[in-house]
Amino acid sequence: MAASVDVGIGLLGYGTVGSAVNRLLVESADEIERATGHRLRVVRALVRDPAKERPFPAGDGVLTDDFAALRDDPAVSLVAEVMGGVQPAGDYVRELLRAGKPVVSANKQLVARDGADLFAIASAAGVQLRFEASVCAAIPVVKVLRESLVVSNVHRVLGIVNGTTNFMLSRMERGGSYADALAEAQAHGYAEADPTDDVSGADAAAKMAILATVAFGSRVRYEEVERRGIEELEPAHVLAASELGMVIRLVGIATLVGDAVDVRVQPALVARSHPLAAVDGAFNAVMLQGDHIREITLEGPGAGGVETASAVVADLVSVVGTSGTGFLQNDACWRELERLPPEQWHSQFYVHLEVSDRPGVLAHAASRLAAHDVSVSQLVQRPANGAATLELVVHRAAYGQVADALREIAVFPEVLRPPFVMPVIV
Amino acid sequence: MAASVDVGIGLLGYGTVGSAVNRLLVESADEIERATGHRLRVVRALVRDPAKERPFPAGDGVLTDDFAALRDDPAVSLVAEVMGGVQPAGDYVRELLRAGKPVVSANKQLVARDGADLFAIASAAGVQLRFEASVCAAIPVVKVLRESLVVSNVHRVLGIVNGTTNFMLSRMERGGSYADALAEAQAHGYAEADPTDDVSGADAAAKMAILATVAFGSRVRYEEVERRGIEELEPAHVLAASELGMVIRLVGIATLVGDAVDVRVQPALVARSHPLAAVDGAFNAVMLQGDHIREITLEGPGAGGVETASAVVADLVSVVGTSGTGFLQNDACWRELERLPPEQWHSQFYVHLEVSDRPGVLAHAASRLAAHDVSVSQLVQRPANGAATLELVVHRAAYGQVADALREIAVFPEVLRPPFVMPVIV
Repeated sequence: MAASVDVGIGLLGYGTVGSAVNRLLVESADEIERATGHRLRVVRALVRDPAKERPFPAGDGVLTDDFAALRDDPAVSLVAEVMGGVQPAGDYVRELLRAGKPVVSANKQLVARDGADLFAIASAAGVQLRFEASVCAAIPVVKVLRESLVVSNVHRVLGIVNGTTNFMLSRMERGGSYADALAEAQAHGYAEADPTDDVSGADAAAKMAILATVAFGSRVRYEEVERRGIEELEPAHVLAASELGMVIRLVGIATLVGDAVDVRVQPALVARSHPLAAVDGAFNAVMLQGDHIREITLEGPGAGGVETASAVVADLVSVVGTSGTGFLQNDACWRELERLPPEQWHSQFYVHLEVSDRPGVLAHAASRLAAHDVSVSQLVQRPANGAATLELVVHRAAYGQVADALREIAVFPEVLRPPFVMPVIV
Repeated sequence: MAASVDVGIGLLGYGTVGSAVNRLLVESADEIERATGHRLRVVRALVRDPAKERPFPAGDGVLTDDFAALRDDPAVSLVAEVMGGVQPAGDYVRELLRAGKPVVSANKQLVARDGADLFAIASAAGVQLRFEASVCAAIPVVKVLRESLVVSNVHRVLGIVNGTTNFMLSRMERGGSYADALAEAQAHGYAEADPTDDVSGADAAAKMAILATVAFGSRVRYEEVERRGIEELEPAHVLAASELGMVIRLVGIATLVGDAVDVRVQPALVARSHPLAAVDGAFNAVMLQGDHIREITLEGPGAGGVETASAVVADLVSVVGTSGTGFLQNDACWRELERLPPEQWHSQFYVHLEVSDRPGVLAHAASRLAAHDVSVSQLVQRPANGAATLELVVHRAAYGQVADALREIAVFPEVLRPPFVMPVIV
């Protein structure tokens, strides 16, 4: 092994993740030296209050509240951004990259929103920017996509990338309302007091934007991800899914169709035999489908301080190990793909209809679907207080055809509420 | 991007995998150049019969039956060994490494048997030897273990690493004998005419030897893996598992206990809620449990020509991308761990007993278990033609305690057949 050289690490942030990064670097210094020939040591960490007590204290003089002191410290040769938030984290990362310091970021909002700009700066400065920890914590999906599946032409990414909603939906299967499930997730610490970011699909959308960007090599911004949250889900939908042999999950779906890309996050029905249906509670899973690999699924903890820190350390190790080579240090994007018009996105779909229980309603609805070339594969009809619910699964069709048919069905006098539609994953 | 330089690739073997490697290198030349700055091109391929027709023909003059012509060709700067078999593949790889050519191998038997020797030669010559494709085809478990989990102290690896037996056991659950399941696996092309290598656990043992070596950093040889095949499994065992809410799978288990390692392959009961129970048919899955990651599971196709070829290409890309650095190019082994005495290996266990239906048998058996501190967690008793079967699940215990108790139980006059024992994975 080459003679060991100390590599000074700067941390932006020294909270749960930052202090765990420091702990892992200290405790695993020998493993890292075996892998890279170097010893990595935290020499500066930017915090708001250097006097505050920390779970794993930094060394003397390491904590500072002065960004310039970190940026200008010649001992800092590599920085991990573990502070979160789009600003001021984004400005700090830009300044560091311009100053020639490689950066590893755990910040999904920053990478999903400002990735194009950040990678342009990194590229101009000739330094690496890595972001494994920004998606699904310890699950090494970015490295696998970029390094192991480099020739696999991945054309579809399916992800359960939000543990909070996965926990809530698993709970709703065992009975109970959306409100019950949310209260339980909050009691377990899986959901924040304001759960909007999780239940609206915003968190999952940021992760799917990053995954689609890496998988397809074309920038997908957070704002471009079609999303729908789980707030409207009712026990009746969960029950219907169960009767159809499926579960409901908040699923991220990124699809490459020819030269067009579609990225969406929404509740979907997932067949019980599908690997994503087995993902338990707060775990995450990502399924990658490509030409030469059929499908590869990675599952693990998608959140957690030390889990995120372990991905940050893996990125630090990769930066140190590959410095001076041209190996996969560039932006993952190399092309501009158009966006698939949402009405051309194909899937099987589930439709929940509430109708007054009069003869001919089913025939009427079925004929509107047929008129748009949408054919029914499964149907469950149930009486409900003088009314009836129809649970339909339709064969693979363009979303536009299904939406057109449902628009016509929605105006039937017998239809009591707007139809509720979700994709089906088998 | 740096100016592109052609990298000449040699192939040992040009069968299904070799020709697929060539095809992927041709079809994905642009992707590879983006990742590495180089174009990889097959310039020599060693075959027995250069005149034979090939699925993806090699270029003019590429095929040769003369190993020396490949080894001594200055245009060959990197070699993929995709011929299989311990010899002559092993000698070829040794000669190539000594000649300073990095090698990527898809050969599990070679890596599992001769790894120590091969890595010593590679290290002395200062060249890389990579082997992602030798375990579980396209599933990137070696890269994930070495690069993403470098600080994770992985202490347990659970694997379903043989698709043939997984398919057969999935079939037996739906009814049918071992012989039926084997015939069906053969009809689907999942099992060879002589299925010994799969059903005896030999194939899985070679893969687990490699995985344990990489995970724990200490050489585990194929011969050291305790193994038991699936040949003795009867429909009664499958039925009993089902009644206990479990399935039977051929599971590889590598465990690190302090400074001792235990690696085994055997049929085991797996709780239906466990991620490994959901692995479908001929797919493979590996679960990695460590300190900072809880558990990460990778699932995908564990066999197949193009799937294996895609892992070979990923290794070629990694070799080209990291040449000249010290990054993870050494042998994964850096320590010598002792072997855990098998009787000290802890697990929950399942025991199948066939007894004559006389009063007191159960009490007698339970008292022998209790005498060895083995306590029963689940019990199913069923009459069977004047006799009875007892299906027991015992709490976590050392295998030695269970074996001692069963040795005493086996000699009861009421016990009609030797007890059948398997670990239980929950």
